[in-house]
Amino acid sequence: MPIRLGANRYGKAENRVVRIHRDTARHEITDLNVSTHLRGSFEAAHTTGDQASVLPTDTQRNTVFAFAKEHRVRPIEDYALRLARHFVDTTPAVSGALVEVEEYRWNRIDGHDHAFTRDGGWVRTTAVDVEGDTAVVTSGVTDLALLKSTGSEFHGFHTDRYTTLAETRDRVLATSLTATWRYRSTEEEWDAVHADVLTLVARSFAHIHSLALQQSLFGMGKTVLEAHPEIEEISFVAPNKHHVLVDLSPFELENSGEVFIATDRPYGLIEATVVRE
Amino acid sequence: MPIRLGANRYGKAENRVVRIHRDTARHEITDLNVSTHLRGSFEAAHTTGDQASVLPTDTQRNTVFAFAKEHRVRPIEDYALRLARHFVDTTPAVSGALVEVEEYRWNRIDGHDHAFTRDGGWVRTTAVDVEGDTAVVTSGVTDLALLKSTGSEFHGFHTDRYTTLAETRDRVLATSLTATWRYRSTEEEWDAVHADVLTLVARSFAHIHSLALQQSLFGMGKTVLEAHPEIEEISFVAPNKHHVLVDLSPFELENSGEVFIATDRPYGLIEATVVRE
Amino acid sequence: MPIRLGANRYGKAENRVVRIHRDTARHEITDLNVSTHLRGSFEAAHTTGDQASVLPTDTQRNTVFAFAKEHRVRPIEDYALRLARHFVDTTPAVSGALVEVEEYRWNRIDGHDHAFTRDGGWVRTTAVDVEGDTAVVTSGVTDLALLKSTGSEFHGFHTDRYTTLAETRDRVLATSLTATWRYRSTEEEWDAVHADVLTLVARSFAHIHSLALQQSLFGMGKTVLEAHPEIEEISFVAPNKHHVLVDLSPFELENSGEVFIATDRPYGLIEATVVRE
Amino acid sequence: MPIRLGANRYGKAENRVVRIHRDTARHEITDLNVSTHLRGSFEAAHTTGDQASVLPTDTQRNTVFAFAKEHRVRPIEDYALRLARHFVDTTPAVSGALVEVEEYRWNRIDGHDHAFTRDGGWVRTTAVDVEGDTAVVTSGVTDLALLKSTGSEFHGFHTDRYTTLAETRDRVLATSLTATWRYRSTEEEWDAVHADVLTLVARSFAHIHSLALQQSLFGMGKTVLEAHPEIEEISFVAPNKHHVLVDLSPFELENSGEVFIATDRPYGLIEATVVRE
Repeated sequence: MPIRLGANRYGKAENRVVRIHRDTARHEITDLNVSTHLRGSFEAAHTTGDQASVLPTDTQRNTVFAFAKEHRVRPIEDYALRLARHFVDTTPAVSGALVEVEEYRWNRIDGHDHAFTRDGGWVRTTAVDVEGDTAVVTSGVTDLALLKSTGSEFHGFHTDRYTTLAETRDRVLATSLTATWRYRSTEEEWDAVHADVLTLVARSFAHIHSLALQQSLFGMGKTVLEAHPEIEEISFVAPNKHHVLVDLSPFELENSGEVFIATDRPYGLIEATVVRE
Repeated sequence: MPIRLGANRYGKAENRVVRIHRDTARHEITDLNVSTHLRGSFEAAHTTGDQASVLPTDTQRNTVFAFAKEHRVRPIEDYALRLARHFVDTTPAVSGALVEVEEYRWNRIDGHDHAFTRDGGWVRTTAVDVEGDTAVVTSGVTDLALLKSTGSEFHGFHTDRYTTLAETRDRVLATSLTATWRYRSTEEEWDAVHADVLTLVARSFAHIHSLALQQSLFGMGKTVLEAHPEIEEISFVAPNKHHVLVDLSPFELENSGEVFIATDRPYGLIEATVVRE
Repeated sequence: MPIRLGANRYGKAENRVVRIHRDTARHEITDLNVSTHLRGSFEAAHTTGDQASVLPTDTQRNTVFAFAKEHRVRPIEDYALRLARHFVDTTPAVSGALVEVEEYRWNRIDGHDHAFTRDGGWVRTTAVDVEGDTAVVTSGVTDLALLKSTGSEFHGFHTDRYTTLAETRDRVLATSLTATWRYRSTEEEWDAVHADVLTLVARSFAHIHSLALQQSLFGMGKTVLEAHPEIEEISFVAPNKHHVLVDLSPFELENSGEVFIATDRPYGLIEATVVRE
Repeated sequence: MPIRLGANRYGKAENRVVRIHRDTARHEITDLNVSTHLRGSFEAAHTTGDQASVLPTDTQRNTVFAFAKEHRVRPIEDYALRLARHFVDTTPAVSGALVEVEEYRWNRIDGHDHAFTRDGGWVRTTAVDVEGDTAVVTSGVTDLALLKSTGSEFHGFHTDRYTTLAETRDRVLATSLTATWRYRSTEEEWDAVHADVLTLVARSFAHIHSLALQQSLFGMGKTVLEAHPEIEEISFVAPNKHHVLVDLSPFELENSGEVFIATDRPYGLIEATVVRE
């Protein structure tokens, strides 16, 4: 039974591109983390070490930085599309490319022209996958920490020999959300849609009276799909960051949903995709 | 266009199970990180919040710990198989389960009966996926740091406008390897095979005169598949941990492959699977 | 030469206290990380294992959580003072206590009553050290990321045989600042002073035309001490997060302070305290 | 009340030096993380931005790498001494220097000449502080994970209103130890002493029947000081990595010290120094 190369890809991960626009005294900053992955006909590189068809990862890095000067880096969807198409269109052996971008946000200090402070919350993401002539854009957000201090229940669940969990009508519900949504086209109002999806996700989380994190996620996804026909589907990865009510009864203190310990591990992990028929 | 639930799963991640076997004065320790993921008919939980078919993640955690007492936890493949099958077989709504286990290794201090020091190197892993009656076992290793101080070249590659990389006939090649291999059955000599694969991988890395990390990976995979018919395929994720030769010429010092700076980001990222026809 | 116990302390680190105030429908959340360290007469615990004078770290944890119900947790300075004094005043063997608190900030989602999103930027800190009747409060901030895209120079420095750095009249200056300031008393307007110091630090960073990170730090500290007589001294730990201008000349592209690579290691590390005579 | 500069220092942190010795076909590798901190007369740099006396951190980095070629990097104590003395002796404004080195260990793969795998366990450290003509060498180890599965008790402790901890005669005792010991001179058999201290620390941990982590630490320190007159004092920072016995009684399973959950936070934190009179 002969042995051969199966799926493979290679690229340069985590290029930390910081782009300053300084055409006027009022600078703009874009702070990115860019990773490239190329697919194609690379059998020889693996089986004989022949690199003739291999565009070095070093060149991919150079391209990432050069494009930040030659072209716009914002919105990140367009920047990633341009990079991915470049690799597929100009490198003979390359049939497909995935370009991932994370964008870290900075705010002006007091409206200052060239001084900024980083906004440490959620990170905007995109992953653009080009295969031949087809491009798929999947954008999203990561590290979006959400918490409800009430309006969350969990009961009526299936039990077995190993179930000890008590039902609850009032608990803290918290997650650090990763959401990714796939666009139907490669020409969208990236910034406006991203901002609106983020608003809808957070607002849905807030407003849904939750009987389970699953229900919150589905509701968030449904709201997004209903409002945005340009989005084909949306996926969530949501760790359930458990907040355990501390037993203060030994100290003759009541604790009605007031004092919690935030625990690290283990954590629930809920993953769901919401799609159109 | 109606909206519905797509792919979904849920479970309890990162259960840190430490199992002490103390049947005799000579204790044994097994130190694990266990994650469970269940798939099945969970539409209602998402769309209406009805939890009737949901086995709580808390119960999954309990099961992970209870099984550590009721059954053996070693080899981790058998432990994961037992857990995954349990969830599929005993929970009506569950059609599939993925159980992942990481195993951290401890060595006896001076041969002591109950004192240990943790071996901080590579971590043994397994991922067991049960769907109905079918189980697939994929075991592996992560954080396996490998380095060759010579015997690695990189030249003859494709170039374009953005290529500046110089060819080299002698460089440092280093990676922190993740390898995973899929077994053909669910009854194997898990420990013996794992130990041998690890030996073959490290030895191949050492002995292959490398024209590219891709070539090293393929060679490692081929060696493993040739020696182990019970393995169907093997995959590698290999960051190329760049060691950049430091320019000491300003100080009138020669640097012929002697002084390097180990860099963090960006890094090459090579992924390859080696399969049987 | 006999051997004896020297300096020692013990405590419970990283108690993750989440306190929900729910007296009205409009909840308030306080999210803390609390560490305790006790000093005192603990020779016997070390030399003979006699624990008679040792208040368990488990009890310290209980106290941290119980106090979150019995007393206010905000401002964190008062909470830490209360905890530290409690340990010193009520535990016979304890002569001194250090209580450290980190506070993570949450914002309401759309002004919602009980739904929040975490503000991931800087973290507020305090360290209260009580020794007998004396308490010293040192508050601060950590993870405050600051960046200037111009208005920073570095030249005229001392050189030696190993110097290769070019002088620059325009560079990116960036840091992830930790600042700590020691108060003169234990009764201050903690929240108001903290907010104002933070504003002054960020604004000074923005407005100082910087000839070195050292100069920026001193200027920030001077501004704070001048405005706040209740602060005795202020200290800074400031990694110089290097942004290296990327050489785009091989691609016939100019790069006048526009495209940078943000590097991880090594980094400059500048530490300075500004004091009163 | 005039404002002035207080304590200050600056340097280059985390220079990742990898030194390959390739004088023969049998290569040797040394993998280091080096940080420098300089003290001296740097008022002008802070108050007016005048850098005339400042040796750039970039030059410090260059020196770290150049010395790796010009001089031996092993033992790390000698390398750090050489660097620290260089900065103090050759830079007019510098009165003191602290050089810290971490050493990561690599093992040969199968005795191979130039292929290695990293030993991921404990890391060897040194911190050399030179002030004028005086040098102090403090070496150590970090990330030394130790665990006893029995032979550890905790009882007879002080209790108060907030104490709920049950006494125990048998528990798991685990830590991830940082130890640092100060040498009496700057010329010692660094490698031999380091190896022996490590052996003594681990062996003492194993053999001491522990009534508290404090007792274990003191015993370890005492053993080291008794065996090594060249060591003046030794300090330990020891997180108590709690292993909590899992309650399996709801499942009608006994758990006599067999199944534990390893917890992350909070953790006990024990710090102690053992000194000579």
